[in-house]
Amino acid sequence: MNPRITLRHARVHLGAWLAVALVTFPALARAADFLPSWNDGASKARIVAFVQSVTDPTSQQYVPPAERIAVFDNDGTLWSEQPMYFQLAFILDRVKALAPKHPEWPTQEPFKSVLAGDMAGVAATGEHGLMELMAATHAGMTTDEFRQTVSDWLATARHPRFKRAYTELTYAPMKELLAYLRANGFKTFIVSGGGVEFMRVFSERVYDVPPEQVIGSSIRTQYELRDDKPVIVRLPELEFLDDKAGKPVGINRYIGRRPILAFGNSDGDFEMLEYTTSAPGPHLGLIVHHDDAAREYAYDRKSSIGRLERGLDEAAQRGWVVVSMQNDWRTIHSDR
Amino acid sequence: MNPRITLRHARVHLGAWLAVALVTFPALARAADFLPSWNDGASKARIVAFVQSVTDPTSQQYVPPAERIAVFDNDGTLWSEQPMYFQLAFILDRVKALAPKHPEWPTQEPFKSVLAGDMAGVAATGEHGLMELMAATHAGMTTDEFRQTVSDWLATARHPRFKRAYTELTYAPMKELLAYLRANGFKTFIVSGGGVEFMRVFSERVYDVPPEQVIGSSIRTQYELRDDKPVIVRLPELEFLDDKAGKPVGINRYIGRRPILAFGNSDGDFEMLEYTTSAPGPHLGLIVHHDDAAREYAYDRKSSIGRLERGLDEAAQRGWVVVSMQNDWRTIHSDR
Repeated sequence: MNPRITLRHARVHLGAWLAVALVTFPALARAADFLPSWNDGASKARIVAFVQSVTDPTSQQYVPPAERIAVFDNDGTLWSEQPMYFQLAFILDRVKALAPKHPEWPTQEPFKSVLAGDMAGVAATGEHGLMELMAATHAGMTTDEFRQTVSDWLATARHPRFKRAYTELTYAPMKELLAYLRANGFKTFIVSGGGVEFMRVFSERVYDVPPEQVIGSSIRTQYELRDDKPVIVRLPELEFLDDKAGKPVGINRYIGRRPILAFGNSDGDFEMLEYTTSAPGPHLGLIVHHDDAAREYAYDRKSSIGRLERGLDEAAQRGWVVVSMQNDWRTIHSDR
Repeated sequence: MNPRITLRHARVHLGAWLAVALVTFPALARAADFLPSWNDGASKARIVAFVQSVTDPTSQQYVPPAERIAVFDNDGTLWSEQPMYFQLAFILDRVKALAPKHPEWPTQEPFKSVLAGDMAGVAATGEHGLMELMAATHAGMTTDEFRQTVSDWLATARHPRFKRAYTELTYAPMKELLAYLRANGFKTFIVSGGGVEFMRVFSERVYDVPPEQVIGSSIRTQYELRDDKPVIVRLPELEFLDDKAGKPVGINRYIGRRPILAFGNSDGDFEMLEYTTSAPGPHLGLIVHHDDAAREYAYDRKSSIGRLERGLDEAAQRGWVVVSMQNDWRTIHSDR
């Protein structure tokens, strides 16, 4: 008998018992502090009060478990997104790795700028350039091959400032919140502008969010037999952009039910929060505000990545919680 | 305190405790006969043996719960599909209901044939005609409005032969199988050529399959504000056809993981079964064979609806279980 399988099995049992015990005795989930990386304050209090009200069967705000859907943006909400989206770092690294097979790239944009490390040049190629980079690095392979490539990259790539693996730059307070919600019968989903198959490589290991609960941007795929073996092949054509008004569309397509909690950090999440918090029943909208240059980054209205302007302007009138990274979070990045 | 909510809550608790007890003590799930509508025989034995092997931690075939993904076709697999797909009956009824607002329809195909009850005429309008009917009955409204329309129709429409609501024409043996798999830690998904938003109206109530585990064909949708309220509007444009080679594509898109069990009934499910049963680990493919004209319908190679030819020809060599409705099922339709 494989001892690793046995241990995994035992942990599954323990986890399942614990989850049921907590759902059955909500007081347990309340009493234990699931959110040690959150400072005591208004933001944490709002979250805990909301969870208590929707899980208390005697409350007017009670929501049955099947309807406890919580959606989270990824970049800038569950992990860092500066100095560039981590998936963009993957793309740039892939172009460099693939360059020896493409002798034409050093003279052809956007590859020329990527290989020269000229980020302004890359940006100047605009949306067309980005699609070229996507096609060169994300398509023309099977889904299995793509996953392996992402997995290999995550194992070795390091963040330029923190010198840590990108999957270690996930936020401890958010991972605690995901676990806290699940312990209270919520189903947690990622709804991100990032590539769905990119995120699925690490979402289960890092966030305990299984692949079927990850919604993201996608390219077209096609079913084929190769050597009599079925494969899914990735095509160089955008299928769905899961950003801005695309987020509620993606939520409706994949989940088919309106969430009761939405957490984002940029104006790309505005419509997702608007959709969630316009539901007739109880709901909660939250925004991570990156205001901590010392421990992470400080940016909002002027940033090209993760720009947050309308969200800040309208949060108060809409009742959304603006979470201050500096004041509300005791810890930023997760240890593991 | 609302007594209905309390009762519902109590049932959720009981169900959760039971599920955990069964996952924790697999012998319980084995001992109790979860499949009373299945006759004892080779088909039932194959199913039970498979479930026991993938849930037994001491087995070479053990599969961790997170990877226990089971996918089911809907039309002809979970409920009847004769004398026409039930969603087509909905479309025809909707055309009749909407006709007073469309004075041009009595002279315009495919509406003319629908209103005249001329099914051969409808069929003669081909794919273009079907898209016209879809656009007229499935688009140009919000998702909430569409759901309400489907819900109202299901409440009153009756099957021409059985004189029962369509949702009562679900198969008792299949509902038992869904529950049996879930009691053994499986996550059950519907993967159907039918419209995803059509099925989601009843999937949770009838199959205990929540909307986020329903994959189907879809039309494009768009996020809009109407009277300052966010809505998702359905557009008259096909987005995704979840049939044949589209089924593995849909599975990869929505689930992101290869299933270990797939159950279909027609050649539209062939690629889904092929994809599932080509995985390196344990897997099981099954086909409902409609061979029971007395209690339901008998059709396969020659049928325009639910045609099954290649599946029958290749099932033996591929190790797929052909379930005989006549011999393997004690009961056909569910009572509730």
